[in-house]
Amino acid sequence: MIRTSAYAAYSPDTPLRPWTLERRDPGPHDVEIDIDYCGICHSDIHTVRGEWGAERYPFVPGHEIVGRVVSVGAQVDKFRKGDLVGVGCMVDSCQRCRSCAEDQEQFCENGFTGTYSGIEAQTGRQTYGGYSKKIVVNDRFVLRIPQNLDPARAAPLLCAGITTYSPLKHWKAGTGRKVGIVGLGGLGHMGLKIARAMGATVLLITTSPAKAESGRRLGAHEVCVSTDTAQMARHKESLDLILDTAAVSHDLDPLLDLLARDGSLVLVGIPAERNPSPDVARLVRKRRSIVGSITGGLRETQEMLDFCAQHDLGADVEIIPIQKVNEAYERMLRGEIKYRFVIDMRSLAP
Amino acid sequence: MIRTSAYAAYSPDTPLRPWTLERRDPGPHDVEIDIDYCGICHSDIHTVRGEWGAERYPFVPGHEIVGRVVSVGAQVDKFRKGDLVGVGCMVDSCQRCRSCAEDQEQFCENGFTGTYSGIEAQTGRQTYGGYSKKIVVNDRFVLRIPQNLDPARAAPLLCAGITTYSPLKHWKAGTGRKVGIVGLGGLGHMGLKIARAMGATVLLITTSPAKAESGRRLGAHEVCVSTDTAQMARHKESLDLILDTAAVSHDLDPLLDLLARDGSLVLVGIPAERNPSPDVARLVRKRRSIVGSITGGLRETQEMLDFCAQHDLGADVEIIPIQKVNEAYERMLRGEIKYRFVIDMRSLAP
Repeated sequence: MIRTSAYAAYSPDTPLRPWTLERRDPGPHDVEIDIDYCGICHSDIHTVRGEWGAERYPFVPGHEIVGRVVSVGAQVDKFRKGDLVGVGCMVDSCQRCRSCAEDQEQFCENGFTGTYSGIEAQTGRQTYGGYSKKIVVNDRFVLRIPQNLDPARAAPLLCAGITTYSPLKHWKAGTGRKVGIVGLGGLGHMGLKIARAMGATVLLITTSPAKAESGRRLGAHEVCVSTDTAQMARHKESLDLILDTAAVSHDLDPLLDLLARDGSLVLVGIPAERNPSPDVARLVRKRRSIVGSITGGLRETQEMLDFCAQHDLGADVEIIPIQKVNEAYERMLRGEIKYRFVIDMRSLAP
Repeated sequence: MIRTSAYAAYSPDTPLRPWTLERRDPGPHDVEIDIDYCGICHSDIHTVRGEWGAERYPFVPGHEIVGRVVSVGAQVDKFRKGDLVGVGCMVDSCQRCRSCAEDQEQFCENGFTGTYSGIEAQTGRQTYGGYSKKIVVNDRFVLRIPQNLDPARAAPLLCAGITTYSPLKHWKAGTGRKVGIVGLGGLGHMGLKIARAMGATVLLITTSPAKAESGRRLGAHEVCVSTDTAQMARHKESLDLILDTAAVSHDLDPLLDLLARDGSLVLVGIPAERNPSPDVARLVRKRRSIVGSITGGLRETQEMLDFCAQHDLGADVEIIPIQKVNEAYERMLRGEIKYRFVIDMRSLAP
């Protein structure tokens, strides 16, 4: 076993603090990685605090991981020592079902193994995330980080990037299409950049007029303040697609009104409390849809990283030492981050 | 003007009774039709009773119309005197917008003109439906009834048929696809027949175990009783598409559980009270969608009629004289009809 230091939650309501955990010895298909950076995703906070169900503590979050390959198993030919690599929300899946065969591991019919809070098939033990010095991952679940991407700015692409890229691609954001992005947080700011780079006309939909300027800087052609009914009316029935990154319960009806015929409202957040029930007539009268999307498969994640490299896209990040992680959580909950915290894991002693 | 007898509602809560109304004189693009049959749609009851908003009375419902051409305008070349024709939910639209140009008049961006409860562009007067002896309709909105269809059994195709055919086609019901039909009323029974004829494997989902046998006779390969959790669990994640014809508020979550990855739950009813709010996690985890659909365009309605003729499909109907319309409404509300009432309009004196 490989001993590695980490930061862990010990309960839903106490600060994260140092812990030492053991990673499995790398098998023939495994890649051993020294972690350089790990982004902080809102899911980390949900999970640490037990908001998505009870957790087993100590618990190590983190699924936006960038690091260097230290060693590879005998069967691994895609990676070699020294490569800059990434690990996202999944570290394993059954690799036998239809979804896995179609490179859609996020929909693995036997359930994918989450990078944290999952069960490792090889050992039967809980998986631990990237707030740690080292990780051992099956090579199928390791991504190549293109050379021209800044490693710290690339880390959030492994969750925020693919979670927005996948639905934008699936529902055909691109030239000639009008796309709305709801929310300007970690996911929303990547959604803006990616939709713009895909060639779509992009509208930022935000509750906060103060975000208009940064929204434009990040890629929005236009900004619509959702609390301003006149602004919302001006964009009525104009969008082909809305990517809704809001993480709290909210009324979907005003967003449905923005969709043109056959438009889709894509939800990527799962609020702790349900949204108000949407109006069926608004769906029926324009053949609109409300859909959900979750991260993306490994092949698509690599495609997204290559796309971001090609378009010189990374997350806007604030790099912190691991010792500031609890403070970062509080600032995220207050919305005081533009737009993603990334932990420099070199701040943690080996 | 053409005087014609009809049955009308005089208020939301009194029985329908005879009335005489005037149809416009046929213009160069109009077709004058003597009505033989008119189906009774649940929408008729909703509208008569003011459940979808206030109506102007006297009010004549009916949008499943089959009759014979009596005369045609000078510019009409598609129809001639004596042709058997149909009229469905729409009698006009702007014919200039993108949706009209794409033969999707049901999504006319300036609003289609309903066969009843609409405003006639030619006269500025209210439109009156098919519970009458005659109607005058723009030729674009007149359908040809194929010769081998029984006229009375064809009448419900003009609403119940197209309202199920259009989403089944749009969301690709066909060979190799598994389709669920929720509800076995006027729409549901046509949904079963059409989905089966399209080549799909069809599951009837019903609250009533007593409907299993008729469900199978009408086209279902299997029947699942939605109140039986074991039966619902057996069909978990198995369907590509669900056509939900339920007209009252109901919980969508158990239906979402039946959908495979990328499956769609298509709603065609607009309940008076909203459904409970659906679970976003159920959408996200399998990229499922909740969508709405409303009738179909004219070209697609003709295609549906031709498809039904080719597959020898008509509605299962009970033919009544107009004098029994109020009784029929009561029986429909009690679910005592298999599966569509059709009024023989020849029972009404000219």
